[in-house]
Amino acid sequence: MKDTICAISTPAGIGAIAVVRASGDEAFEKLTPLFPNINLNSLPPQSAKFTQIFDNDQVIDQVVVLKFAAPHSYTGENMVEISCHGSLYIQKKILELMIEQGCRMAQPGEFTQRAFLNGKLDLPQAEAVADLIDSQSESTHKLAINQLKGSFSKKLNSLREQLVQLGSLLELELDFSEEEVEFANREELNRLLDELGTETDRLLHSFKVGNALKTGIPVAIVGQPNVGKSTLLNTLLQHDRAIVSPIPGTTRDTVEDTFVINGTPFRFIDTAGIRQADDSLESIGIERTFQAIDQASIIFYMVDASRADFASVKAEVEEFKVSTDLTDKQLLIIANKIDELKTLPEHYKDWHDMDIIFISAKRQVNIGDIENRLVEYIQQHHIQDVSLLTNERHYALLSDMRTAIGRIRQGLADEIPTDLLAEDVRIALYDIGSLTGTISTDELLDNIFGKFCIGK
Amino acid sequence: MKDTICAISTPAGIGAIAVVRASGDEAFEKLTPLFPNINLNSLPPQSAKFTQIFDNDQVIDQVVVLKFAAPHSYTGENMVEISCHGSLYIQKKILELMIEQGCRMAQPGEFTQRAFLNGKLDLPQAEAVADLIDSQSESTHKLAINQLKGSFSKKLNSLREQLVQLGSLLELELDFSEEEVEFANREELNRLLDELGTETDRLLHSFKVGNALKTGIPVAIVGQPNVGKSTLLNTLLQHDRAIVSPIPGTTRDTVEDTFVINGTPFRFIDTAGIRQADDSLESIGIERTFQAIDQASIIFYMVDASRADFASVKAEVEEFKVSTDLTDKQLLIIANKIDELKTLPEHYKDWHDMDIIFISAKRQVNIGDIENRLVEYIQQHHIQDVSLLTNERHYALLSDMRTAIGRIRQGLADEIPTDLLAEDVRIALYDIGSLTGTISTDELLDNIFGKFCIGK
Repeated sequence: MKDTICAISTPAGIGAIAVVRASGDEAFEKLTPLFPNINLNSLPPQSAKFTQIFDNDQVIDQVVVLKFAAPHSYTGENMVEISCHGSLYIQKKILELMIEQGCRMAQPGEFTQRAFLNGKLDLPQAEAVADLIDSQSESTHKLAINQLKGSFSKKLNSLREQLVQLGSLLELELDFSEEEVEFANREELNRLLDELGTETDRLLHSFKVGNALKTGIPVAIVGQPNVGKSTLLNTLLQHDRAIVSPIPGTTRDTVEDTFVINGTPFRFIDTAGIRQADDSLESIGIERTFQAIDQASIIFYMVDASRADFASVKAEVEEFKVSTDLTDKQLLIIANKIDELKTLPEHYKDWHDMDIIFISAKRQVNIGDIENRLVEYIQQHHIQDVSLLTNERHYALLSDMRTAIGRIRQGLADEIPTDLLAEDVRIALYDIGSLTGTISTDELLDNIFGKFCIGK
Repeated sequence: MKDTICAISTPAGIGAIAVVRASGDEAFEKLTPLFPNINLNSLPPQSAKFTQIFDNDQVIDQVVVLKFAAPHSYTGENMVEISCHGSLYIQKKILELMIEQGCRMAQPGEFTQRAFLNGKLDLPQAEAVADLIDSQSESTHKLAINQLKGSFSKKLNSLREQLVQLGSLLELELDFSEEEVEFANREELNRLLDELGTETDRLLHSFKVGNALKTGIPVAIVGQPNVGKSTLLNTLLQHDRAIVSPIPGTTRDTVEDTFVINGTPFRFIDTAGIRQADDSLESIGIERTFQAIDQASIIFYMVDASRADFASVKAEVEEFKVSTDLTDKQLLIIANKIDELKTLPEHYKDWHDMDIIFISAKRQVNIGDIENRLVEYIQQHHIQDVSLLTNERHYALLSDMRTAIGRIRQGLADEIPTDLLAEDVRIALYDIGSLTGTISTDELLDNIFGKFCIGK
């Protein structure tokens, strides 16, 4: 584990400059022969030196060498970063020179893995590094940077402390079990368990939004054929993504694209209109519409405001509401085509029990109202303020912990032996330990860091 | 010219890290608000600091800030380099923050242009930076790095000194023109002119190879249909680049690809077989074959060694040699298909006046001999040792200078007035000045640096 690893750390390709770096106990000694004009060992840590890098007596490039001495480096080891001219030849050549000097090509994420193993980062922080590099919007970026700064780890540590307290209270009860002093402790235990349960539930509950954020919060645009779903998609995206025609049923497969509103990515999914299918192709499309509804966090149900048969429109919406599982989903009724009306129809006045917006997708009227509704959604779900659970591994471990907490609560009610309860506390502590990385296996680490890019 | 410029300097895309940098007199003051946790102004020059970069009270990233103080920086100005996590969002955000603080997006090559204007590099060195970044093989890399180190500039300065000496000798002659002392000076003048002419000719002559190196030294593979040209191309490239079939005339258009041998790129051009064309399409192909021959530095003329009518094969080669302008070209006869022979045919023994290699492209026999011949070519043309002229601008200016030197030589012979000769010396000095950049116009600089990548 102490060998010196090296990698090109900047994006692949040609650029003004590139950075090749090495990390390991012997990083300075190994790279010394490449820089005959300076003394790498005596260069002060955290200082940069302009010099030439050599392949024997051939100058390969004029570079800036930046030295970090253990433990004050990203990995916690001795590190050298070489800023070179960003030609493919030079980048490759410098890597070759390092390998000739006994360095080894780093595995994906190996620098960050070493940072974790050397205690510079805990596991959620290390995982945040990969999320940070992948983040493309303000919201995902904010989640990742907060996690990197340790806000999630702090929450986990507080959960852990509560679990430890729970464990010691149980021990206490175990000690005094024959002295009938249990009742006072039971209350305390139940209070702690409720707190733990509530906090864990909140985190678990945030996973749907947190996870959705990575690919954009899914918004399904549904409704009968020809109500203007594809026109609305194009208007929201501000470019012609979906084919629009006056022919009902133009959209067959779902069409989707992501748009960032107030720093948060939304993934709009235009769907095939819901009606009795004419052919098998159309029925596949309609099936996919229902899948989209199922996976969506927000549903835009579109109707044609210009339709005369108001009663049937309302009945259609009522029917959709009762036939669809809207748990954890936000439904917004969008009445389109107001450009075809002189005044807003009287009959919509008693729709006050529904969340409805009148727009013209074609003439771009009131589109801002829809966007405002999405901004409200961001605020209601605390997307930019609170730490959300975004990682499937974390979700699985917290779910497991939540189950253990539930079992303890039930066990207390059923007055099962305290040592059985203590076993569940150990399970919950193991889950937290796996989360923060105080407990880890090589397989787990390979799995986590294998998804990183090379050079990180 | 003193405003602060900024750019992402690492290759475009996502990576482990990216570098965003700024340069200008006020670089430290402008970026100070982004780093509230450190004092950028009091950070020692050439030192790196791990800190957080802020957008008001929001942490954007954990970064390493590297500070260079004028004049000890790439541009010669105050510079700040920020190593951030390589997400697209962060790279863009940091650039935005810099612009908010009053920095300006750098033009392509503007950092290097400032380095030139601040006297850190002369013009050929600045031009070498772009060549260095573009270089993809050892040979082009070596030329660029030598030019960056100043070897070409040194040569130009020596030419310039000779021109200045020439000028002062002419002045001397002008002063003593009525005292009939000219003859001693004439000898000295002619010697100097010859030296200058020879050295300039050598440089001009090297341009063909130097320029060819950028895209690979062109090697035309020609011969009659079905002698195995495409098979040889594929064998040399070590992959199936050209379509091969037993049907004569399979290759219609020229097919080319580059392969690096001993660090030098060769561009192999497979051509349509030379014969009486059957149709207009084929005749276009054959026309292109002759263009390829015209542009090639090396010609592989292929024949079928297994053909019985030896006399006509030899006649064909002789015909090719007399009908083709082979000035500055190397011709190699390649007799293919020796796999179809039991022994090497007797009749080839008297080909000793020709440079011939017997191979089997199909069975990969003696391909190494061809490669050795190309390595010899590299050595003969001093491709990896000597500074070659690679830049069209330099070629044009040196050509102009050479013409002026020729005129002076002729003028001396014709005994034209010395002040007319002095005018040509001034022209030659102007050419050298334009080359090194002591004389430059905004238009010239825009032209040169506009071809650079952003961030350099």
